[in-house]
Order: sequence, then C-alpha cells, then structure tokens
Amino acid sequence: MALLVQKFGGTSVGTVDRIRNVARRALATQRAGHRVVLTVSAMSGETNRLLALAHEITKIPSAREMDVIAATGEQVTAALTSMAIQAEGGQASSLLGHQVRVLTDNAFTKARILSIDKERIFEALDRGEIAVIAGFQGADEHGNITTLGRGGSDTTAVAVAAAIGADECEIYTDVDGVYTTDPNICASAQKIERISYEEMLELASLGAKVLQIRSVEIAMKYGVPVHVRTSFNDTPGTLVAKEDSALEGMVVRGVAYDKGEARAHVVGLEDRPGLAAELFEKIAEANISVDMIVQSAAADAESRAGITFTLPKSDLARGRTWIDSIAKGLGAREVRYDEDVVKVSIVGLGMRSHAGVAAKMFRLLAREGINIQAISTSEIKVSCLVASKYTELAVRALHDGFGLSAPKASV
Amino acid sequence: MALLVQKFGGTSVGTVDRIRNVARRALATQRAGHRVVLTVSAMSGETNRLLALAHEITKIPSAREMDVIAATGEQVTAALTSMAIQAEGGQASSLLGHQVRVLTDNAFTKARILSIDKERIFEALDRGEIAVIAGFQGADEHGNITTLGRGGSDTTAVAVAAAIGADECEIYTDVDGVYTTDPNICASAQKIERISYEEMLELASLGAKVLQIRSVEIAMKYGVPVHVRTSFNDTPGTLVAKEDSALEGMVVRGVAYDKGEARAHVVGLEDRPGLAAELFEKIAEANISVDMIVQSAAADAESRAGITFTLPKSDLARGRTWIDSIAKGLGAREVRYDEDVVKVSIVGLGMRSHAGVAAKMFRLLAREGINIQAISTSEIKVSCLVASKYTELAVRALHDGFGLSAPKASV
Repeated sequence: MALLVQKFGGTSVGTVDRIRNVARRALATQRAGHRVVLTVSAMSGETNRLLALAHEITKIPSAREMDVIAATGEQVTAALTSMAIQAEGGQASSLLGHQVRVLTDNAFTKARILSIDKERIFEALDRGEIAVIAGFQGADEHGNITTLGRGGSDTTAVAVAAAIGADECEIYTDVDGVYTTDPNICASAQKIERISYEEMLELASLGAKVLQIRSVEIAMKYGVPVHVRTSFNDTPGTLVAKEDSALEGMVVRGVAYDKGEARAHVVGLEDRPGLAAELFEKIAEANISVDMIVQSAAADAESRAGITFTLPKSDLARGRTWIDSIAKGLGAREVRYDEDVVKVSIVGLGMRSHAGVAAKMFRLLAREGINIQAISTSEIKVSCLVASKYTELAVRALHDGFGLSAPKASV
Repeated sequence: MALLVQKFGGTSVGTVDRIRNVARRALATQRAGHRVVLTVSAMSGETNRLLALAHEITKIPSAREMDVIAATGEQVTAALTSMAIQAEGGQASSLLGHQVRVLTDNAFTKARILSIDKERIFEALDRGEIAVIAGFQGADEHGNITTLGRGGSDTTAVAVAAAIGADECEIYTDVDGVYTTDPNICASAQKIERISYEEMLELASLGAKVLQIRSVEIAMKYGVPVHVRTSFNDTPGTLVAKEDSALEGMVVRGVAYDKGEARAHVVGLEDRPGLAAELFEKIAEANISVDMIVQSAAADAESRAGITFTLPKSDLARGRTWIDSIAKGLGAREVRYDEDVVKVSIVGLGMRSHAGVAAKMFRLLAREGINIQAISTSEIKVSCLVASKYTELAVRALHDGFGLSAPKASV
C-alpha cells in the first residue's frame, strides 16, 4: 500500500467530463489499495476569466485582492472533484489552502510555501477518503489568502507529498513526460524515463516548461519522487528522482532553449578594477536579474573594455532606462540591446566527470556556422547565447551530436 | 461619526459598473465622516451558475462541497468591491467568512451564525479602510466552509452590525423599503417609514420577502436599527427598529400573504383525548413542519372529528405518504389535500391593546363573500386561510378596511 499524491492541471479538469475521469482514475488507484491525495488546478480558462473580471474594475488591481479572486478557481475544482468521486461511489472531501494550513510568506501572487499541516490530510485519509486539495493557494500568518504564481499547483502537490511523506507525486499534464528536447522543433526528441532532480532543475530553469522550478527544488530537498505523465492514457511518463548510478554513462540528458532573454552590451567602459562590480551592484539595486555575463578585456589603444550580459525580456522595457543611466554614470560610451537571441543549453550530471563537453558543444555549433555571443556554465550544464534565427538548427545539432537522437533501445 | 454596515444584494453588485457604484456610495459615506463596513452578495446569477455546475457533476451533491463552491461567489464580489474602492482612491480590504471568524454550526447550506470576531473588522477600520465582508458564508468549528442559505447576506450584515455595535445596518436592495402590502397586487400600498422588529418579523414570516427572518431576529435580539432602502437612488427607505410609542395609534401596520402552504384535512377521526397530540407528534417525527391547526369537534352520530392543518407546499410531495399512513394508523377515514389556498395576515403591535381586530378582519372578508378555512393568531397578528383565487380581493379589502390606503400625510 503506497501513499500517493496525484496532481491534475487545468486541462485535465477543464470540463465536467474530464473531472469525472480524474475522479475515476483516483478511485481506481485507491481501489488498487493505495491512499490517495489529489491536488487540482482551476478549470482551464477559469483563472483568466477571473483575472479579466478584476482588470475590468481596475488596470492595477491590488495583489492581495487578486489572490482572493484567483484562489476561487481551485476552490471550485476541488469541490467539484470531491462531488465527482462521491458520485462514483467513493468518499472524498475538498481541502482549501487555509484548511490544510498551507502557510506561505505574504508575497501575494507569487508566495512561497513555508509549511503544510499534514494532520488535516491524514484525518481525511484515515476516514477512507480521497483528500482533494485545492492547488496554487495558501494563507499567510495573518490568514490572508495567497497564491503561488502560475503553475503553482505543481508546487502544492510536491510540497504536500513532502509534508505527508508520500511514496510518489504524480504530475498529470497534457504531455506524456519530459523529453530530451522540445519535440516541436526536434522530431527525434525522446521521452526520458528517469532524470535526476539536478538535471530536471537545470532543464526547467533553462526553458523546459513541463514542471515549475520551485516544485523541483522542493522535490529535491525532500527526496520526493515525481512522476510526470499524461492524464489522457496510462503510459508511464518520466520519473524525476535521485541520481541513478545506472545512468551515469549518459553525459548529456537534454537540450533546452529559452527565448525569454535579451542581451545588453555595454560599450567603451574604462578598464579599471571594480567597475564590473559597481555596474552589477547598481543593476541589482534596480531589481533587474542578470543571467549570463561576459567581460571583454580592453583591446584598443584607449584601453576601453566591454561587458555583455543578459536579462529577462520582460524586464527590458522597465530596465532599459535604468541600465542606460547606470552605464552612463560609469563612463560607458553606449549600451546596445538585442532581443533576437536564444539561450541554448545542454544538461547532464555526467559532465561532472567528463572533460571536453563544453568544447564539443562549441565545435558542434561552429560546424553549423553559428556564432556564440555569450557562454555560461555550471557543474552540470553549458549554455550558449546565439542569434534566435539559429534556434532549431542549434538544438538539432546538439541533440544529434550528443547522441540523444539514438533509438530508445540503445540508450 | 457613526459606525455603519451597508449590505448590497446580488442585483446591486450584478455588473462591474454597479460594483463601482457601490464603491462610490461607500466612499461617499466614509468621506462624510463615518466608518463603513460593507457586506456583499454574489453577483446576481453567479450562485445559480455555480450550483448548475455542481448539478452537472451529480444530482445529489454533498452539502459540504456545495458550500465550498457557493461561497466563492461572495468571495469574488468582496475582492472586486475592494478593488473598486481602491480604484476610486479609497482603502479597502476584503474579509472572508473564515477570516472574520463567522463561526456557524455545521448545518451546511443553511448554517446559523454563532459568533463573529469583531477584532479583524476593527483592525481594517483602524487602518482607515472600508472593510468588505463576503456575505452568506462562515466556517464551523473545524474550519469547514458553511453558507447561511438564500438571502444569508442579510443575516451576515445584521450579525456583523451586532458584533461591532454599529449605529445602523443599511440593507440596500432592489425595492425602496417595506410596504404596507405587496404593491404588485395593491396599488394603494404605501412605504412604511418605521416599523418595529416584532411587526417586521411577523411580516417576513407571513410572506413579505424583503428581509430574511433570521436577520430580523438577530436585529431584534441585539437592538440593531436596520434601514431597508434601494441602491438605485438616495430616497430613505424603511427603518426597522424598536417599537416607537408615537406609532401606537396604528393598529395594523401591514397585510401579508403567503401562497407557500397547502392544507391537509384529516377526516373521520375518533373523538378521543390525546389523538391530536399523537397525530402531530408523529408528523413532527417525519420532520414536516405544520403551521395552522383547526380541530373540529365531532358533530355526527358516530362521534367522529376532523383536523385541518397547513404545511409547506414544498413538503407536500414527500410528506403526503407519511401523513396518509399516520392518519390511517390513527383510524382516520381519509386525508384531503388542497394546494389552492393562501394565508392572508394582518400584523400590528397595536393589536395588543385593541380588542376586536380579529373580528373586524373576519367581517371584512365575509363582506367580500370570502370563506375562511382556518384561523391562527398571535399577540400581534391574525392569519386566515382562504381559497387562493381570493388573494388580491382579500389583501385589498384588508388594506383598505384597516386604513392602510389612506394618503401618507394622514397616517
């Protein structure tokens, strides 16, 4: 008898019929002898409907009140799902964020979970019920309703799994697992059967959208095995779990890309120690998060250097004026911006023990005539910034070059 | 500086524009120097939409889960109203039932309020905010969401007013006050300027729909002045308050009618002591509430008596089989049912000190050739059951006969 958390996203509970399917699936799991906790999202479209209503009232709605409204989407689904389970002859009760004391900080619309009261959940399980927890929501220490940001139901599910010590957290979604790269741009992409937390975290950070980063962090911290799978059939998906020594042979596990960043190039800086520190301190003060950084040493007679960095495109409109004035204050000639860039990354635990992986990546890109604008590395990933027109070409070259396109049997 | 509770019903918050009007009205009150607590209903149509969704899942949804769903309607309105107040330059925060600890019993879908935590409300007021409380909802001692039944937002408003010691509770609705009778069937009906709790309670119990009975009970218990008025203009409405000696001259304050009851006539009972007690004990055990009761003594040679009583039409389908078998068990010949009846009532505190009011009522009905099928009286009301085809005739005859149609100036 296992203790399982099953999370169903907005598409999986998007209609009354789909909610019935979720109920049947959960009941089948329970009848197979397991204890089941469900976490559900709002019916697809519902959150947008609610936000539109708020925006009809005011262009800049209060974050606290937005959360009060947004939380109702999951509240309704949790109750409907409980009813559907009861209609199928099972027992269930809905549990809202504040009822299972999903305690969060007070960062409305993007709160972080601090703790969950497992007792309320076990009370329901001990009564033979399926506990149906409204995802995405919590309450701060004063009882204010909070929400966890888009995709927050993943985080609820994994945090609940951690709190109750679940054997596995199943994330049901509209794709059937995690792929070696985006199948939409690389036909030879393959479903990954098992991947480590560290690799999944890098892939999620680097642009793979199948799981929320925060949920992977929690899963890794508490060692919760996460099974990403589709709700439309019974095919096993991808298990995100502790590093598996059997897989150490794989140097690169996946190729990710992210078009969400823009490049800023600060030109004609004085080449003196501490200037870069000063620049990025001031940028941080403006609350702009910087990702890749490349410093080019002075090469000309005037001894002036350049600094290239990337920042989220969504911060560009707001950040541009800041960056321009900061750079000017430091004596820079100008700042050039480029939004037509993509960050292409390879991820794999095997890199830790394999030399030459980065070099091979550069060679594969060069062979296609792709110029690298910036590089960043960590222990288990290498990222290159290239012109966005090369996205598909670069991803396919890396996917083939690192042997990810091989037929499944030979993996 | 007064402390005021303003309650707005579903029609008054039915659109984004109307919510803006509510916000402006509350702000105008605050800017006039008062402290304001709002209580809001769900946007009109919303509760029905949510219930329909539940009924799509299952014909007999769990009452606990129904409340989880139904409560979201008021939750959304409370947040939207707070946003609207903020958009108009004011300060506000929404407060849900569980946040102001509207503690109720656990009778889901028709819970009763046990207590309210006024501290949360005063915290908001002390910050200079308008506190916007979601009506209709509460939580039981285990934190389960409960709702108070249709019209429950009136009850929330009055209970909040009682808890915080408000100077007045304004109930904004789509009619402009309480009338001497239903203006739809009696053109000479007049708006009542002031009415006592006792009279309002009788009128509400006897069919007037403008206020929930429970809210009047709470207002009376805690002495909360309730001002029933329209949200569409600034005309004063009806003040429901303590008995006013200046109005003692009015014998009858209003005429009410109720088509919601059916008549049952148990024929051919043995005329022995204790039989009526036995009959109504058994009916009470079947959870059927009986209103008027008339016992006719044995008049024929066989010494058999009859008992007539009324019960809610809504209980008739379920109750009929019970009543038939109970009556049969007691030796009755048969039970005859009649749904074409109406209960017409006159209400007035002045009856306490005026003899002959009932007799005058019977005379007024007799003059119109209306046969009385049953009579029930209390200290401040007299009700007569008559054939429903006489509804308008009876109401108008009583309204004129007791001087309620006189021009306002002469009241």
